[in-house]
Amino acid sequence: MSFLYKSEPVRGARWAELFAAQTPEIDFHIWPSTGDPAQVRYLAAWQPPENLADTFPNLELVFSIGAGVDQFDLSCIPAHIPVVRMVEAGLVAGMVEYATLAVLAAHRDWITYAAQQREGVWKPMPVRTASSRRVGVLGMGVLGKAVLEKLHGFGFQCAGWSRSEKDMPGIECFAGEDGLQDFLARTDILVCLLPLTAETRGILSRQLFQHLPQGAVLINLGRGDHLVEADLLDALDRNQLSAAILDVCRVEPLPQNHPIWQHPRVMLTPHIASMTQPDTSAEAVLDNLRRHREGLPLVGLVDRERGY
Amino acid sequence: MSFLYKSEPVRGARWAELFAAQTPEIDFHIWPSTGDPAQVRYLAAWQPPENLADTFPNLELVFSIGAGVDQFDLSCIPAHIPVVRMVEAGLVAGMVEYATLAVLAAHRDWITYAAQQREGVWKPMPVRTASSRRVGVLGMGVLGKAVLEKLHGFGFQCAGWSRSEKDMPGIECFAGEDGLQDFLARTDILVCLLPLTAETRGILSRQLFQHLPQGAVLINLGRGDHLVEADLLDALDRNQLSAAILDVCRVEPLPQNHPIWQHPRVMLTPHIASMTQPDTSAEAVLDNLRRHREGLPLVGLVDRERGY
Repeated sequence: MSFLYKSEPVRGARWAELFAAQTPEIDFHIWPSTGDPAQVRYLAAWQPPENLADTFPNLELVFSIGAGVDQFDLSCIPAHIPVVRMVEAGLVAGMVEYATLAVLAAHRDWITYAAQQREGVWKPMPVRTASSRRVGVLGMGVLGKAVLEKLHGFGFQCAGWSRSEKDMPGIECFAGEDGLQDFLARTDILVCLLPLTAETRGILSRQLFQHLPQGAVLINLGRGDHLVEADLLDALDRNQLSAAILDVCRVEPLPQNHPIWQHPRVMLTPHIASMTQPDTSAEAVLDNLRRHREGLPLVGLVDRERGY
Repeated sequence: MSFLYKSEPVRGARWAELFAAQTPEIDFHIWPSTGDPAQVRYLAAWQPPENLADTFPNLELVFSIGAGVDQFDLSCIPAHIPVVRMVEAGLVAGMVEYATLAVLAAHRDWITYAAQQREGVWKPMPVRTASSRRVGVLGMGVLGKAVLEKLHGFGFQCAGWSRSEKDMPGIECFAGEDGLQDFLARTDILVCLLPLTAETRGILSRQLFQHLPQGAVLINLGRGDHLVEADLLDALDRNQLSAAILDVCRVEPLPQNHPIWQHPRVMLTPHIASMTQPDTSAEAVLDNLRRHREGLPLVGLVDRERGY
């Protein structure tokens, strides 16, 4: 019985240690080493190997190394095999840090001050209180909720939007297509933490931006394909949006000649908002293996219909 | 009996409203209007008027509009008149926001990513956990403590340093000259929130930097005169420091030809980390007026010997 890991090797080496200590009955292999393919019951990968079903006939469970599964072609994973997203404390903590950083940067005008610095301009702007600033988070999964909880602690007016109804103390909750327009109308700083699905692809578009108050700031920490980049540039030109903070792009790395690189009102980071951390992710996977053996519900189980 | 306000007029107008509602027995004047100078019992100012003692013979109490009193020439204020620093919730909240923003920016390599963006470089760096990062705050007054408490909530290893011994749950506390070197040796991200006094002027110097781990980040949110700017530039050149975030400068506005403007590893903002907020500061001053009348200890009373 073996576990096949196909991702970043440094993290893999740490997983191997933790698995050896906690589940010695499971052999741990780091791709391209697989051991006997017939022994592989569990796979963790950013991208599964090709011909998955044929190569590993006894596969029981597939783990995504990332918070999403949009990079998987789910049709290549036999329907009887559960697919699990990464829900782990290190990934959540990293996203909470980055979202807080980005929201505070928007709130305290850091994009403007960075541009002023390059131009040699010393021009203080009024300091607004957090309680006068309306932050909205698209997506109220584990990440969105943790981000909202932290931002609430700074005194921002916080709201969340999700596909289905949610409830969270101190947070104004909006749901479904019907709730989206009202959510946007009250949002000065918009954070995207949605899963990427057929429904959310391209959601950050001209049509969405027009419902935000003029001068709103967009923070995309989801996937590059959530955003129609041409619409963003146009909204910045028209001052519909005052600034954007992007950690993801449609094509990564962002192509050399792309106008986002030098845009004075865009802060870009190379998809580093959060990463699956070795120790905490191994714990989360080991916990799910125990749950699987004991027939308990898996944490982060993907609904294939919903796509996340 | 009157209160004289000599500072930013928009805030003054709001104070006037709040004073009228809560202390109608005190006349409120906004400088340069003073009413009968003999009636002036209380003064709030960034810089007191000249000839204070002669002009306002019945002055009982002087409030600084800012968190510090380093801008006051205390020798011009008669010794029997208590001087009070601004300790108010809005000012504290703003500093907590800005310090958190700056520490997260240092922690998540935003200065480097901003420079990479300008150069068109997409180069992710490893994401480090907050628990592996050592943050140190110089100054454990109301501001320093509030900042440490918030940063502690992100899981950073937090320490504080102050002139006199302090105690704070979850925070490693260092004190006095004897404790400074050990404090610096364990600090990856250093935040200055000290009062400016004869002892702290120029404290952020080559001599201090050499005790920090190589590659540390400096965040100065105190006063420009805490920092020897030439020593900072030298420490950046030698990679003793990897980056700096400055909200204050020795000369403000920073002179046009100063090398800090275009330094790729310095983020500069024009002294906006926190500002005295109209409503909450009026509340704090009204509370101190009540305390003064009732003979209770004043909040933020300045020790003239200590200088803060």
